[in-house]
Amino acid sequence: MQRLLKLAGAIALVALPLKAQEMVTDFTLDNGMQVVVVEDHRAPVVMHMVWYKAGSADEKPGVSGIAHFLEHLMFKGTENLESGEFSKVVTANGGRDNAFTSFDYTAYHQRIASDRLELMMQMESERMVNLRILESDVLTERDVIIEERNQRTENSPGALFHEQRNAAQYMNHRYGVPIIGWRHEMETLDKQDALDFYETFYAPNNAILVVAGDVNPDEVKALAETHYGVIPANPDLPERLRTQEPPQLSARRMEFRDARVAQEYVTRSYLAPERDPGDQKEAAALTMLAQVLGSGPNSVLAEKLQFGTEQAVYVSAFYSGVSLDDTTFGLVIVPSQGVSLGDAEAALDGAVQDFLRDGVEPEHLERIKMQLRAEQIYARDSADSVGNRYGRALTSGLTVDDVRAWPDLLQAVTEEDIFAAAERVFDVNKSVTGWLMRPKAPEAPAAQEEVKQ
Amino acid sequence: MQRLLKLAGAIALVALPLKAQEMVTDFTLDNGMQVVVVEDHRAPVVMHMVWYKAGSADEKPGVSGIAHFLEHLMFKGTENLESGEFSKVVTANGGRDNAFTSFDYTAYHQRIASDRLELMMQMESERMVNLRILESDVLTERDVIIEERNQRTENSPGALFHEQRNAAQYMNHRYGVPIIGWRHEMETLDKQDALDFYETFYAPNNAILVVAGDVNPDEVKALAETHYGVIPANPDLPERLRTQEPPQLSARRMEFRDARVAQEYVTRSYLAPERDPGDQKEAAALTMLAQVLGSGPNSVLAEKLQFGTEQAVYVSAFYSGVSLDDTTFGLVIVPSQGVSLGDAEAALDGAVQDFLRDGVEPEHLERIKMQLRAEQIYARDSADSVGNRYGRALTSGLTVDDVRAWPDLLQAVTEEDIFAAAERVFDVNKSVTGWLMRPKAPEAPAAQEEVKQ
Repeated sequence: MQRLLKLAGAIALVALPLKAQEMVTDFTLDNGMQVVVVEDHRAPVVMHMVWYKAGSADEKPGVSGIAHFLEHLMFKGTENLESGEFSKVVTANGGRDNAFTSFDYTAYHQRIASDRLELMMQMESERMVNLRILESDVLTERDVIIEERNQRTENSPGALFHEQRNAAQYMNHRYGVPIIGWRHEMETLDKQDALDFYETFYAPNNAILVVAGDVNPDEVKALAETHYGVIPANPDLPERLRTQEPPQLSARRMEFRDARVAQEYVTRSYLAPERDPGDQKEAAALTMLAQVLGSGPNSVLAEKLQFGTEQAVYVSAFYSGVSLDDTTFGLVIVPSQGVSLGDAEAALDGAVQDFLRDGVEPEHLERIKMQLRAEQIYARDSADSVGNRYGRALTSGLTVDDVRAWPDLLQAVTEEDIFAAAERVFDVNKSVTGWLMRPKAPEAPAAQEEVKQ
Repeated sequence: MQRLLKLAGAIALVALPLKAQEMVTDFTLDNGMQVVVVEDHRAPVVMHMVWYKAGSADEKPGVSGIAHFLEHLMFKGTENLESGEFSKVVTANGGRDNAFTSFDYTAYHQRIASDRLELMMQMESERMVNLRILESDVLTERDVIIEERNQRTENSPGALFHEQRNAAQYMNHRYGVPIIGWRHEMETLDKQDALDFYETFYAPNNAILVVAGDVNPDEVKALAETHYGVIPANPDLPERLRTQEPPQLSARRMEFRDARVAQEYVTRSYLAPERDPGDQKEAAALTMLAQVLGSGPNSVLAEKLQFGTEQAVYVSAFYSGVSLDDTTFGLVIVPSQGVSLGDAEAALDGAVQDFLRDGVEPEHLERIKMQLRAEQIYARDSADSVGNRYGRALTSGLTVDDVRAWPDLLQAVTEEDIFAAAERVFDVNKSVTGWLMRPKAPEAPAAQEEVKQ
């Protein structure tokens, strides 16, 4: 956003339209598959995506990582495609394909010339129902995901820290289990686990087709009916109910020490409500709170701690309301050299307290709202990102109407809304405070070290 | 034990036999039901117990409390017994009956004149297979368990604190969920949930019959074959595999504040190995460690902190190795008036460090071993407690041989074993430190309080 401000100047932004006029059409096939079409005719390309309302938080206990493992196996063979053929065909047609797994969804997508859309639908609908998992693929691909965990998690103290914090944040909900899986459970994942997940969740009535780019809705509808509409709905699709959190009644703190830590820091996360269908106001206020408090160099925390007292080299507040169940509101402070983690945390708490006492500056809030309006204009530049936004929202329990209403809800947030939301969310009993640290300097025999705090 | 030492004197104890000579016989019925008979002919009474290898940690996610709820419903009607009739018959025959649920087992027992043993088996075998759950009983009994939770948990800051600590201790394992259940899940428990648990786990091949008292094994065997032996095994009994912990990599701390707290204190728990079949040496060393460190007024921690520096009014170390999966090793310190929780915790850590530096006094260890031998003699006084010991062990993955081997294993623990076990278990990364506290004194507006640490 800084770049935009420099280019356009604050005055110009005021004139930006409130709503980005996205050309979005949505409908549902007879078998229950939702379809979202985002038109963008500037280039003859299309993004074809299938989103399943099934992510790691839908896994059964003991098989963590199976959602992501299945995502990998989906690139292996089907009844009519050899192992690896899917991606080869995409590449041979000048396209790119990939997939991703999160807590609440798994998505498969190809970006390709728009005249190849039908081919993509042929292949994607094929692997929605005709996946053939070979034992040999299971063994090699399991090694791949374990190696992926090694690279992304085991080799990164920050990622391990995040994983342990998440487990401390959620007492009963599956969001406490990492998407990629606990290593000891990944090691036992087998073909049957993958098939169970596939057969339970991969069906048109649990999927959302998103097509974004140089297409028109009628054409997409006709193709979708031909290729996806013929697949029967899964009548046994389970209701999407996860175990919910009990009352969180105690402030938790944790220390994670690792010799590979380059920069120590403090995080604080609070359990926070997510965007619910027809009920997004609290989430809108929390989104604005994160913006006001800790998004960018003009935020309250940055002005105070980074440029004011200079106790921090970085400070941030973050919140993402797109989530099927309770999410988190987070704060982070990276202390300046010579500032201890304890002092940094105290400074962070002090700055938040000052904010709660002083409230929100109307001009600051108005500036943020302008920035958001501008971002929406930018976002419209990319049909892919619009498609992504709908895919994430619709797999996280929201409706097309909720997505459409969101920009206006953000603009309607008042100073009082933000203050009230802050008072509710900053409940220390629902918080986890984490310190990422280097190991202690040796000063005594190891056995004595281990019981020291 | 203090009482025993005063009565008998230290010299007399040395002469106590190493093993309590329990008259214990065990066998297995053709349908897989294990039977343990403890003979005690001093009084014409018998304890009849059926233990199921199914506790709260065997529940599916989302139905926490169902093991305990089913325990309640087992006192309602069966095909041939009206609701409440079971206990009425026991009482009418001069007996007492009850039941209890834990993480790893659910047990039903009656204490009654030994000539009524067959009647108990008739009724207990009846409700093993013929339970009839009425919707009306479900609704009233659900109110009962919720009220039980109110009384035992919600009304007790110590119990709530324990529950939250447990949830922080276990990142992935079901031991993090309370046995009685999370209230919001208890409120949704229904008849089908109870039936699912009943039909999955209540079967002779998942049960252990323990009969202790004025009986002989042949007589018990004949009766057991008549009443339990005719019940077919459940061929679909699932393997008993729970989700296991990932590596615990970060020290966790938590504060629980409640206006009802009368006495503030500090607890520390470490994830610790349990007694495993054929592999109980580490657990034996940890058992002795808890004895040496913090069991009774002569323990290391009590001598140092309670009677030495007088920083504590109470201090304790506790460990129970009977558990199907990883258990915890715990420390607690209740500070003297005027000693802060921080100082108390530091004193506790200091005392443990001193212990790790100084090691175990041979005389102290020998005294504890004598006490244990004496306790075993006392324990033999109660056939019930012997029966309980076998029931708990056999439902927690151990064998009759493991139970028999345990006293000798404890006697064989050396100073070095204890020191090595202490070094392994006091891993701060596997620990949760909890402070039970009164609320902060008000000193600023409430909104500011909430973000303060």
